[in-house]
Amino acid sequence: MTSILDKLRSVQTTTHTNLCVGLDSTVERLPNHYSRDLRSLVDFNQRIIEATQEYCCAYKINLAFYERYGSKGVAALEETRALIPSTHLSVADAKRGDIGNTAESYAYSLFDTLNFDAVTVNPYMGFDTVEPFLAYEGKLVFVLALTSNPGSADFQYLDVQGRPLYRTVMDRALQWKAQGECGFVIGATHPAELKALRTEYPHSVFLIPGVGAQGASAIDIRDANGRGPALINSSRAILYASSQEDFAQRARDVAMLTARDLSV
Amino acid sequence: MTSILDKLRSVQTTTHTNLCVGLDSTVERLPNHYSRDLRSLVDFNQRIIEATQEYCCAYKINLAFYERYGSKGVAALEETRALIPSTHLSVADAKRGDIGNTAESYAYSLFDTLNFDAVTVNPYMGFDTVEPFLAYEGKLVFVLALTSNPGSADFQYLDVQGRPLYRTVMDRALQWKAQGECGFVIGATHPAELKALRTEYPHSVFLIPGVGAQGASAIDIRDANGRGPALINSSRAILYASSQEDFAQRARDVAMLTARDLSV
Repeated sequence: MTSILDKLRSVQTTTHTNLCVGLDSTVERLPNHYSRDLRSLVDFNQRIIEATQEYCCAYKINLAFYERYGSKGVAALEETRALIPSTHLSVADAKRGDIGNTAESYAYSLFDTLNFDAVTVNPYMGFDTVEPFLAYEGKLVFVLALTSNPGSADFQYLDVQGRPLYRTVMDRALQWKAQGECGFVIGATHPAELKALRTEYPHSVFLIPGVGAQGASAIDIRDANGRGPALINSSRAILYASSQEDFAQRARDVAMLTARDLSV
Repeated sequence: MTSILDKLRSVQTTTHTNLCVGLDSTVERLPNHYSRDLRSLVDFNQRIIEATQEYCCAYKINLAFYERYGSKGVAALEETRALIPSTHLSVADAKRGDIGNTAESYAYSLFDTLNFDAVTVNPYMGFDTVEPFLAYEGKLVFVLALTSNPGSADFQYLDVQGRPLYRTVMDRALQWKAQGECGFVIGATHPAELKALRTEYPHSVFLIPGVGAQGASAIDIRDANGRGPALINSSRAILYASSQEDFAQRARDVAMLTARDLSV
């Protein structure tokens, strides 16, 4: 089996970028000419994917934006997942975390039913909640470490024997037995910490959200990340580059510029 | 608007129990005479709900067991949700947690689209990930504190300024501004901690999973919980009381005995 890191290297040989495009699309924010329905949402996603695939190495789907429409929304998620080219990494941003037999069902849902290459998981409940994801060979599991939101300060920085909690999370997660690859979510809103973590964990894949609408500059993040393996995510700045019929062309333009800022 | 605590008191006036029945049903474990499909799963759920509603105050649905079947599974979840009587609390065991606009979508999915009374949420990412759930009036939000699984020891007991992390989580969560009610998940596998937490947080609603298949005794948990407001969950011991055609009658028998052990 080709390892997931080989797949990442392969797509980056073609696209030369760490850019991951986040498909956080919502019906409400579709360009003006679209009707407000799930059919339009999938069509929009298709045009965004076609317009940007030359300039990114991965697509990240945020499940919440589909689940809000119930089973019909999940059907639109399935259609969108099928549109992601097999050359690119597909990331389920699901942030799941639950006890053993439940985690197995979530892993089955995301890796088997939906066939994603990678997922995000929440470590709060401990090893047996992450292990069923790590048990999949050829998959990539991003454990939440230091997230991009303001609330990341509430618990992730708590002092645990002289180090912040998120460092303890990372150290323990790397000790867990894994068939698949264990990476981490490190928010782009913490460039100093990102730089320090890169030195300490040079080989871990980082999923770095928060470039663009959340305020972090792409170049600062590229510099902080250095040459470590990473998916650096931008969602809204690309998706909503224009609310007019030229949205796909404008998304392509923004993706091209962001990809250059995030070149590898 | 009737508060969610009024609703809990009302159903307990009729049923006299803290028992919450967990609908962790899977196609694989349906009684032998059923065909292995989602239609059977919904029929099974309907018969379990009919057989047990006299002996419980709430039903908890574990979303993972439906999501594993993709959009068709979520349709079965919607059908099952609609079967829960409006007299009883409906709990979405989803353990979601994500940044602001994403958390809003998850809250919309669970409280509006699916119309659950209560949810479980993961606090690791901090206040802005829980706040969109707490913003709903008339709903109940169970923040994960001390969970029932072996991995609960990995991070939840970490020493933060002389107290375990889960205590810090609880203290902070209770400071967060809320329209709805903030409760906590406290696993039944920690009866000593449960007893101590009841003294310190006498008015918080606890969702207590882990009775039955996970090994905790109902009577020990009732004694540890005392008179505090609680939903005490049992899933597999009731659902799978028999693999024969008498499964509903046997589920009813187990629920009746468990309800008595968990009397209020």
